[in-house]
Amino acid sequence: MIRTDGRAADELRPVSLECGYTQAPGSALIRMGKTVVLCTASIEERVPPFLKGAGKGWVTAEYSMLPGSTQPRAQREASRGRQSGRTMEIQRLVGRALRAVVDASKLGERTIWIDCDVLQADGGTRTASVTGAYVALRQAVQSLLHRRLVRENPLTGWVAAVSVGLVDGEVLLDLAYEEDSRAAVDMNIVMTDAGKFVEVQGTAEEQPFDRETLTRLLFLAEGGVRRLMTVQEEALAGLPEPNRA
Amino acid sequence: MIRTDGRAADELRPVSLECGYTQAPGSALIRMGKTVVLCTASIEERVPPFLKGAGKGWVTAEYSMLPGSTQPRAQREASRGRQSGRTMEIQRLVGRALRAVVDASKLGERTIWIDCDVLQADGGTRTASVTGAYVALRQAVQSLLHRRLVRENPLTGWVAAVSVGLVDGEVLLDLAYEEDSRAAVDMNIVMTDAGKFVEVQGTAEEQPFDRETLTRLLFLAEGGVRRLMTVQEEALAGLPEPNRA
Amino acid sequence: MIRTDGRAADELRPVSLECGYTQAPGSALIRMGKTVVLCTASIEERVPPFLKGAGKGWVTAEYSMLPGSTQPRAQREASRGRQSGRTMEIQRLVGRALRAVVDASKLGERTIWIDCDVLQADGGTRTASVTGAYVALRQAVQSLLHRRLVRENPLTGWVAAVSVGLVDGEVLLDLAYEEDSRAAVDMNIVMTDAGKFVEVQGTAEEQPFDRETLTRLLFLAEGGVRRLMTVQEEALAGLPEPNRA
Amino acid sequence: MIRTDGRAADELRPVSLECGYTQAPGSALIRMGKTVVLCTASIEERVPPFLKGAGKGWVTAEYSMLPGSTQPRAQREASRGRQSGRTMEIQRLVGRALRAVVDASKLGERTIWIDCDVLQADGGTRTASVTGAYVALRQAVQSLLHRRLVRENPLTGWVAAVSVGLVDGEVLLDLAYEEDSRAAVDMNIVMTDAGKFVEVQGTAEEQPFDRETLTRLLFLAEGGVRRLMTVQEEALAGLPEPNRA
Amino acid sequence: MIRTDGRAADELRPVSLECGYTQAPGSALIRMGKTVVLCTASIEERVPPFLKGAGKGWVTAEYSMLPGSTQPRAQREASRGRQSGRTMEIQRLVGRALRAVVDASKLGERTIWIDCDVLQADGGTRTASVTGAYVALRQAVQSLLHRRLVRENPLTGWVAAVSVGLVDGEVLLDLAYEEDSRAAVDMNIVMTDAGKFVEVQGTAEEQPFDRETLTRLLFLAEGGVRRLMTVQEEALAGLPEPNRA
Amino acid sequence: MIRTDGRAADELRPVSLECGYTQAPGSALIRMGKTVVLCTASIEERVPPFLKGAGKGWVTAEYSMLPGSTQPRAQREASRGRQSGRTMEIQRLVGRALRAVVDASKLGERTIWIDCDVLQADGGTRTASVTGAYVALRQAVQSLLHRRLVRENPLTGWVAAVSVGLVDGEVLLDLAYEEDSRAAVDMNIVMTDAGKFVEVQGTAEEQPFDRETLTRLLFLAEGGVRRLMTVQEEALAGLPEPNRA
Repeated sequence: MIRTDGRAADELRPVSLECGYTQAPGSALIRMGKTVVLCTASIEERVPPFLKGAGKGWVTAEYSMLPGSTQPRAQREASRGRQSGRTMEIQRLVGRALRAVVDASKLGERTIWIDCDVLQADGGTRTASVTGAYVALRQAVQSLLHRRLVRENPLTGWVAAVSVGLVDGEVLLDLAYEEDSRAAVDMNIVMTDAGKFVEVQGTAEEQPFDRETLTRLLFLAEGGVRRLMTVQEEALAGLPEPNRA
Repeated sequence: MIRTDGRAADELRPVSLECGYTQAPGSALIRMGKTVVLCTASIEERVPPFLKGAGKGWVTAEYSMLPGSTQPRAQREASRGRQSGRTMEIQRLVGRALRAVVDASKLGERTIWIDCDVLQADGGTRTASVTGAYVALRQAVQSLLHRRLVRENPLTGWVAAVSVGLVDGEVLLDLAYEEDSRAAVDMNIVMTDAGKFVEVQGTAEEQPFDRETLTRLLFLAEGGVRRLMTVQEEALAGLPEPNRA
Repeated sequence: MIRTDGRAADELRPVSLECGYTQAPGSALIRMGKTVVLCTASIEERVPPFLKGAGKGWVTAEYSMLPGSTQPRAQREASRGRQSGRTMEIQRLVGRALRAVVDASKLGERTIWIDCDVLQADGGTRTASVTGAYVALRQAVQSLLHRRLVRENPLTGWVAAVSVGLVDGEVLLDLAYEEDSRAAVDMNIVMTDAGKFVEVQGTAEEQPFDRETLTRLLFLAEGGVRRLMTVQEEALAGLPEPNRA
Repeated sequence: MIRTDGRAADELRPVSLECGYTQAPGSALIRMGKTVVLCTASIEERVPPFLKGAGKGWVTAEYSMLPGSTQPRAQREASRGRQSGRTMEIQRLVGRALRAVVDASKLGERTIWIDCDVLQADGGTRTASVTGAYVALRQAVQSLLHRRLVRENPLTGWVAAVSVGLVDGEVLLDLAYEEDSRAAVDMNIVMTDAGKFVEVQGTAEEQPFDRETLTRLLFLAEGGVRRLMTVQEEALAGLPEPNRA
Repeated sequence: MIRTDGRAADELRPVSLECGYTQAPGSALIRMGKTVVLCTASIEERVPPFLKGAGKGWVTAEYSMLPGSTQPRAQREASRGRQSGRTMEIQRLVGRALRAVVDASKLGERTIWIDCDVLQADGGTRTASVTGAYVALRQAVQSLLHRRLVRENPLTGWVAAVSVGLVDGEVLLDLAYEEDSRAAVDMNIVMTDAGKFVEVQGTAEEQPFDRETLTRLLFLAEGGVRRLMTVQEEALAGLPEPNRA
Repeated sequence: MIRTDGRAADELRPVSLECGYTQAPGSALIRMGKTVVLCTASIEERVPPFLKGAGKGWVTAEYSMLPGSTQPRAQREASRGRQSGRTMEIQRLVGRALRAVVDASKLGERTIWIDCDVLQADGGTRTASVTGAYVALRQAVQSLLHRRLVRENPLTGWVAAVSVGLVDGEVLLDLAYEEDSRAAVDMNIVMTDAGKFVEVQGTAEEQPFDRETLTRLLFLAEGGVRRLMTVQEEALAGLPEPNRA
């Protein structure tokens, strides 16, 4: 099988990661093929009520797709008056993924807000969000360290995410929208730089899958995440000193 | 390690499944230890707008926890004015799990609504919901077949779900709330009677996990699901003829 | 006239009241014919803003019908984003009825939350809610007394409720749904064990009624409430010592 | 006991009813003491979905208190984003009261919307709303008859409403706010010109009441409603021909 | 061109302003032709969070149209669950207009809430709201001065507002609804007693306008505002001493 | 006075306008100094209910600021559940501005949705939105012409917008956030290529202004808009043939 865009089964779409896109303490514009997500990290000097007085920080994420990021246009959630289940599911995933590599006790009583806004959508927006969000988070943490508001680096590792899937009987890496909509199995994997899993979310859209398929999908994802981490490192390396954690 | 309630690591909590608990076309009261979920299946003779005229049916699910099902009491979502992200995430999971074993083209242009309402919560409410919901769905389908509104059985298999987790370094089956809150890894698995995966959702609450842990968790889950399917079968077997699909 | 289910005009449907159905401080599953309501009482160690510092407690109630409790299925209020006027009217009635027999100054600065969730609906859900809620409340109060959080019993009496109505020219006790929908007059009565009225809510659905009809309806209700109180007493009598107030 | 404003126990506050206050098909400004309610009746040439094709009409009501109608100011429900339970309870009562004297089959497939907006509140706003709303409704019906959109008068009688209560052991008619807040029993009665009951809503705010008290309250209410109907008649009599039904 | 109601191009509709319409600290019923708006001013002894501790006060406004104020009836915003963009735009305008003549530092840490509720709408409701609101505000300020809660008059001037527009090629003052709906240009002007502008909001509904038209519209508005201020003064002059600032 | 960034009083910030930023039928990324707004134009083949069957089209706009576009972070409106008054006011302005140069009868029964999402905010986001939105609209119209869905160009002119203000007694063009927050008068002007006004919105934030100031502000704005139109033309000129209208 040849993929629509001529990629090999285990090949990522062209990826770019631009740091410092906005003036937020952390920001990254990630492009994976035609998918474009702007991720920012903002710092708030307080924690949610359930953590008050616990002497530790919080990292949380919000996600949205701009109405014009898909065609036909998607309704704006703010004017509809509520976020969809899909949005909630994704932003909870991004938040959990980041918290898995943060030692909250070293963050102080503050919240880092991650915002992932999809400027253009062509599949894989949730995994691109995780990958970009980590870069924004890292910049925000660096700025806290630099300003001595935080003493020890609270980041315990790196995370990145990628989608994999079973399409027409083949396991494929980094599905574009058209592939995703034909996929029998769709899986999102978040991994650390130590090669461990943070999230494994596999869904049989059409046909249940066996353990061997699962094994092959995880293997493919691992390779993809590894390459994404190189891109993350390069993007952060390009920053002026104070922005590197 | 001895589990709080003395169970073995690979042992389910006591399970019971009572069919026909209410007058809805399908209904099942599932108890797993202290977790109690009432699942009903209702039939509506139309489909959502996006399926109009497509000549097929739809299966969807909603979930809630009664305010008194936990102590301290949880706020009622209807009075708060919106469903939480957790609720949305769970009801989407239940809906997907059921749709994976339904051939919608055999259902006709109608919707089967599954409602999972937690009467008492002690961990594992989302997996208990899937297991109970399938039994309610099966009764509703049977009633459609019996009334000749549907000609061919649209169900392509059975599904059930169970949670597994890594607690204090040990892989455990069917976590109670207290175990779940201490778990380093928490995983929900939905499987079919053919031993295949419908959903694999693993989250590193505290520490990322490696492939070997994943393998052991999946193995444990498989055994649990198999036993739950026996309970499903027995519950349905106890029904008068017309309620067996 | 013979009633659909063969009852006499002044006969209640079969009633059962099961205490301790869940682990909430108070809980009662009440069945009146096919109507089934789960009532729980939860304790919160604070009062609403308007009572802060007033040195007394608060009792409040919430009500809902599970979507599958009626056929066709009712839309879930949490997903619709707001409670209906009917729901609000009912939960306000339940709250007022209970507060009428509570000396709030003896409760301390805490709130008892009553939740009435209808598992199956066949008429009379609001009166069944009052009758069941009182039993749940009584258990919660007993637990507060037992734990010495409350010194003097704040309950000043018992309450129970029943519906009566004028159907086809006859006054009937405890209307089932089919009777209720044909009723010319529909009345809900909450009374105390002293035979006094707490709430009298009569509505001419179809034809205004005269004073004599009112008198006959009230007389019928009084008998019904009296019998319901016997059921309440028996249910509470079956509890282990610490749960009896 | 002497009432704050010197009235006798069975005396209404000064009442005035001004028709045609706005350009709506029906409108009435009712003043009962310091309570002022603007009631309008608007006509919409369609019915709610549940009545479509049923060949009959619908009468429904909405209620609100202007924020400045009480001091301290009440929060605006539109900016809070939802109507309170109290508002819903009241507007449902007004709607039911009016429908009790409307033969919907003679109204045609249209809706009459009644809006009761309280300009100044000093107790008894819900009963003043019923009394004023009936006058607005009657004008709107008259305009339909006049324009030959409706052939036969759908009004089957007159309704008016009044509050009564037990204050300091005495039964009083038409409670002002200060009396209402001290009342042990509070009752709202809607009656027809034939002296029959449409709604009887009695609540023991503080102490349950016996049948004798109920009888005395109803007697008092009957006298009050009778006098209010005289005011209604006079207000409508003052209208130019086409506005009298 | 002759205007529908025979007015000259630079003539206001008949205006009346009645103070003390309700018991709120300030209240004014303003009538401009058939447009009727009830404006009240209420005092709250605290400021919004963003001003806490700033040692100054706040003036804010809310606006609504009663559903029956237009025919066909407008949907009630409280039952729809949110305020429209038009409502928000208008209430923000009213608030800004009043704040322009208030020295908040002399008000103390309190909020004056202005409520403008349109009882009948025939064009120009937002400008009538500003004109009436100022009178209500002035009474509330006077009551604060009288009770010595405020020492120095925080009002730095008077404001009133009027609409002007270009209709059928002519510049007209104070558009009625029918004129407004035909206007090529629609402009709302808020001015002070010193003849200065507080708000200039001009919109080309149909055709962009040049500077000369703008000049003529502003000139017309100035004359209208001057006359409205005379009406404001007379209305306030009629008040008993303590209500004059 | 020297402006913070060294600009002359009548000088715009550096402006850039990038077309085709996303795959929507029209899209433009506009930068004015540090303010960055992504404007997209999407086409929907139907009109809102109030225009059904009227044989003409509709142009409407929505606006939002991404949470990370300001520091401190702004709350996301979708998660708060409603749009602010400021957002509504702005998106209504953008919609009106564009409709002023569209002959809707030539558009056919379709809607063009304009979305203006602020990626970074430093003052002037509403005027930048208008200027960018026009470019996106023009591309969308061009694509309709190109695909022969529309026969005649419905655009009757060009629009662009700029802010002006009175800061420290001087009239300034194109205020940055810091200047805007100090401005005594703040004005937003939308003009056409014929030098006519579409919207004139001036607000005295601190001190009412006279006619002479108004004249000077309008003169300044005119020059700014003229230069912005050159930028619009250049951006559209750079497009491949089919995207030029």
